[in-house]
Amino acid sequence: MPRAAVVLLSGGMDSAVSLAWAQREGFAAHALTIAYGQRHGIEVDRAAKLAAAMRAVSHRIVTIDLSFLAGSALTDPTVAVPKDRSEAAIAEGVPVTYVPARNAMFLTIALAWAESLGARDLVIGVNAVDYSGYPDCRPGFLSAFEALARQGTKAGAGGEAWRVHAPLLALSKAEIVRLARSWGVPLDLTLSCYDPGPDGRPCGACDACLLREKGFREAGAAD
Amino acid sequence: MPRAAVVLLSGGMDSAVSLAWAQREGFAAHALTIAYGQRHGIEVDRAAKLAAAMRAVSHRIVTIDLSFLAGSALTDPTVAVPKDRSEAAIAEGVPVTYVPARNAMFLTIALAWAESLGARDLVIGVNAVDYSGYPDCRPGFLSAFEALARQGTKAGAGGEAWRVHAPLLALSKAEIVRLARSWGVPLDLTLSCYDPGPDGRPCGACDACLLREKGFREAGAAD
Repeated sequence: MPRAAVVLLSGGMDSAVSLAWAQREGFAAHALTIAYGQRHGIEVDRAAKLAAAMRAVSHRIVTIDLSFLAGSALTDPTVAVPKDRSEAAIAEGVPVTYVPARNAMFLTIALAWAESLGARDLVIGVNAVDYSGYPDCRPGFLSAFEALARQGTKAGAGGEAWRVHAPLLALSKAEIVRLARSWGVPLDLTLSCYDPGPDGRPCGACDACLLREKGFREAGAAD
Repeated sequence: MPRAAVVLLSGGMDSAVSLAWAQREGFAAHALTIAYGQRHGIEVDRAAKLAAAMRAVSHRIVTIDLSFLAGSALTDPTVAVPKDRSEAAIAEGVPVTYVPARNAMFLTIALAWAESLGARDLVIGVNAVDYSGYPDCRPGFLSAFEALARQGTKAGAGGEAWRVHAPLLALSKAEIVRLARSWGVPLDLTLSCYDPGPDGRPCGACDACLLREKGFREAGAAD
């Protein structure tokens, strides 16, 4: 029986490619989506479509309302998503779309589900190259999380190892686009935009849209 | 202005005493309760009553349905809570009331709220003496969490320190009872039982009830 893994699946391109990676590695991949009251809540529907189209072993949507996290453009409706920033501006500092401790929260939920499934592998689509300046997308965060998993679970206390896989960590957006295409990831189902229209149409101007556009352009591909 | 802290408040005795500790240390204490579909969901009401009676600066209840975590007696209705176990049995191994990665999940939610409040201190009522064998109540877990907080938050990446306070870590249940009484914690509002009746009456036989009874007995106090 293949080993099970829990893959965080947001509905964006990076997590979809990470799901494909896990499947190609031979994991029985269970997809986990967190509905946290995000401004771009429509991504949750995309995640469900992706999990079905990509034949995840199972897909679970866990709801946790984080709208009380004031100050983040993704959870606080009074804070606008920045638009049309330069590459230099995107690369500089932590943007207002940062959600406090988001990946730590999401990985602990993945950890809990994985432990109850008997899985010891977590997969997350973070990326430290063409990324948005989030602290919880860096290698140091991932190794700190593995250490926490060892200490904070029954399996870890029993001496079992936890692995957090971040297969896109060192890839550029263009490389991610190329992988997605060569692996047949249904990119048309993915949504990267932080501020889509009610019909799911990307705004084309937020950091996530701009990074995605750059990736496709550099990969010589059409989105 | 006093420094703010986020205190995890379950509705049990230990977290109530931890809230009192934080207030006595001079923190502006914000209480956080997680409604996770726990069998003893009535503890959430007790937490609300405690937060009001103890004048927490604010109290937030965050809902996350963890009923999909199969195999734990606290989240899976098909698993019974063990009753009338001996002290030796309670001390041995991780019991079936363990909820996978629970304290890691709860602390990450506390971390997120704290960062959005501008707080850098978290308080949790874990205890490593008369405790129930949970891995996520040990000192190694707490220091691993502080390391994760440094890596996984904007504040931590900016060089700010996070502290996880566990003021009860090295206390016996009897010492916790004595502190509660000398600090005027409203113990009558607390609920420790894992399997209370619909009226909130403790079962008197689960590990949490037995440890609480032992604490009161050794403290020479009536519950």
